[in-house]
Amino acid sequence: MVKIVAIAGSLRPDSTSQMALNLAAQRVEALGAEVEVLDLREMRLPFCNGGDEYPDYPDVKRLQEAVSRADGLILATPEYHGSVSGVLKNALDLMSFDQLSGKVTGLISVLGGQPNSNALNDLRIILRWVHAWCIPEQVAIGQAWKAFSPEGKLLDEKLSQRFDQFAQSLVDNTRKLRGVN
Amino acid sequence: MVKIVAIAGSLRPDSTSQMALNLAAQRVEALGAEVEVLDLREMRLPFCNGGDEYPDYPDVKRLQEAVSRADGLILATPEYHGSVSGVLKNALDLMSFDQLSGKVTGLISVLGGQPNSNALNDLRIILRWVHAWCIPEQVAIGQAWKAFSPEGKLLDEKLSQRFDQFAQSLVDNTRKLRGVN
Amino acid sequence: MVKIVAIAGSLRPDSTSQMALNLAAQRVEALGAEVEVLDLREMRLPFCNGGDEYPDYPDVKRLQEAVSRADGLILATPEYHGSVSGVLKNALDLMSFDQLSGKVTGLISVLGGQPNSNALNDLRIILRWVHAWCIPEQVAIGQAWKAFSPEGKLLDEKLSQRFDQFAQSLVDNTRKLRGVN
Amino acid sequence: MVKIVAIAGSLRPDSTSQMALNLAAQRVEALGAEVEVLDLREMRLPFCNGGDEYPDYPDVKRLQEAVSRADGLILATPEYHGSVSGVLKNALDLMSFDQLSGKVTGLISVLGGQPNSNALNDLRIILRWVHAWCIPEQVAIGQAWKAFSPEGKLLDEKLSQRFDQFAQSLVDNTRKLRGVN
Repeated sequence: MVKIVAIAGSLRPDSTSQMALNLAAQRVEALGAEVEVLDLREMRLPFCNGGDEYPDYPDVKRLQEAVSRADGLILATPEYHGSVSGVLKNALDLMSFDQLSGKVTGLISVLGGQPNSNALNDLRIILRWVHAWCIPEQVAIGQAWKAFSPEGKLLDEKLSQRFDQFAQSLVDNTRKLRGVN
Repeated sequence: MVKIVAIAGSLRPDSTSQMALNLAAQRVEALGAEVEVLDLREMRLPFCNGGDEYPDYPDVKRLQEAVSRADGLILATPEYHGSVSGVLKNALDLMSFDQLSGKVTGLISVLGGQPNSNALNDLRIILRWVHAWCIPEQVAIGQAWKAFSPEGKLLDEKLSQRFDQFAQSLVDNTRKLRGVN
Repeated sequence: MVKIVAIAGSLRPDSTSQMALNLAAQRVEALGAEVEVLDLREMRLPFCNGGDEYPDYPDVKRLQEAVSRADGLILATPEYHGSVSGVLKNALDLMSFDQLSGKVTGLISVLGGQPNSNALNDLRIILRWVHAWCIPEQVAIGQAWKAFSPEGKLLDEKLSQRFDQFAQSLVDNTRKLRGVN
Repeated sequence: MVKIVAIAGSLRPDSTSQMALNLAAQRVEALGAEVEVLDLREMRLPFCNGGDEYPDYPDVKRLQEAVSRADGLILATPEYHGSVSGVLKNALDLMSFDQLSGKVTGLISVLGGQPNSNALNDLRIILRWVHAWCIPEQVAIGQAWKAFSPEGKLLDEKLSQRFDQFAQSLVDNTRKLRGVN
């Protein structure tokens, strides 16, 4: 069975990146994959110091082991200053080739202004660096503050369809590339 | 008098990014600029949560105020996973247009392997986003573990000359763009 | 007197990139700069073969000499496949450090869909490579087919103001960086 | 049977990009795929004018049809000014989603100086734009003038192994993603 780990790079209490991540996670689950959402707001991670050992931070191991077991990833980031959030990049810095190589990844970004691909482009190149795959389908949500209903539903039907295509592609292609069901 | 703030995105005790930053800072100082090095290893910064207020972390204000007063910046980053470190990106996330716009910036990256421009490219686009300038001269130090003497001197004369050109361009062009001496 | 050369990377007869370029050129001229528009639709350029000599194509020399004499550039590109057009990249390939180094450049992109910064980002990195400057102000025109009146005027007032800021920054900063009036 | 089309973006008579392309093509063929090399030096292509019809240039159709039939692509580019050559970008501009979407692509770049990933990064983002896949394995050949023997063999054994891994990944993953043998 396809195993997906989902991580969003926002620590805001009412984060739309986390809403977008949960929405994607639900649709991926509905297609028969197993999804584990790692909420960075509930984990205690250190800043990466270039080393391998963080004995005071057991959540580093938890993060690494969850990603190790996964076939694929969903990464969602708020676009801060035209790029991936430092929070998400730091979480990726705490992992390496060992955990990330060969994983099939779907990318989501969330912005206050017009949708834009900068953070998605940066994530794509970062994941290539550790030899992960990124699916061509990606989602950039612009003017995120008005994209969701209070219940966390997408208000734009076309955007909702993009999430469907995103989820379908992630599950189908993880199956193909990883040889799992 | 030109004021430059220098920040490196590595927390390693014997960080070569910090060595490279100090070296650049010295050469910029030798050209008559005032340089303040903010060592992130000695500051206590939180992960950015998308908000503006971090009452428990006075170093956020210290960072913001130092950059506000500056005409220019030197940013050095280890290249982690083919991009800027999460540590440095998070420090930038803690600032905004208010502090960064219009600043003249010089960029340095440090890698274990072959030199590469990925992190420098990402920083250039990030700084554009907040309407800062980046000078065309930039330095990527490959195989950083063998670039420095134990005293923190560069072993390669050509690389040392690149630092001279970098410092000269940063000081000259900050003067021109900011109208300071 | 500030000299600016303006080049757009579209060969379409009714190109909106060329319209955008002309509009920027007029505003830059109105600020007291001298602007020469090189219309690639009226020049005969070869594909770059990596060499320096194109004896059958006198327009290569014309392009190189016009850019050599300039203090700054305006480059406009249609965004094809999320990047700069091959037409514009090829025109840049026909030049080198000799012509482009130190020039102060303003960047414009034109898209059929939502505005996006991909082509602008690529141009910024390309121009850095030849040690040119890019001003932080840039313009991405989305849904370009409905952006202009039949007379080539911008229909959106806010976009028009962006062109004003773009022109002002290009002229002011070319003066500062190049030491010309 | 896996069908691969191979295209290099250099028009130089003794192009090392073309040498690198041929080498990759041979190794892919040795793994049981069918490879068609389209040598742009022997095709007559126009500059893309944003339109769909090029009646005077039958090679546009030939290019489009060959890529349409393919499952995957090898693209090699000289890195000009820190990016993909205008020649290759223009060839891609002459195609669209119709030909390129879903294709599995391997990327190679060739430079005079130190190896660098800029052109490869740009190609990866361009191909994503048309919903093609790029394999994580990629090859950047630095100091290309001394990389090959006069017979077009690679002189560096480690680089030669990278070509083997590149070819293996391209064939294996094209099989998986496209469901062909």
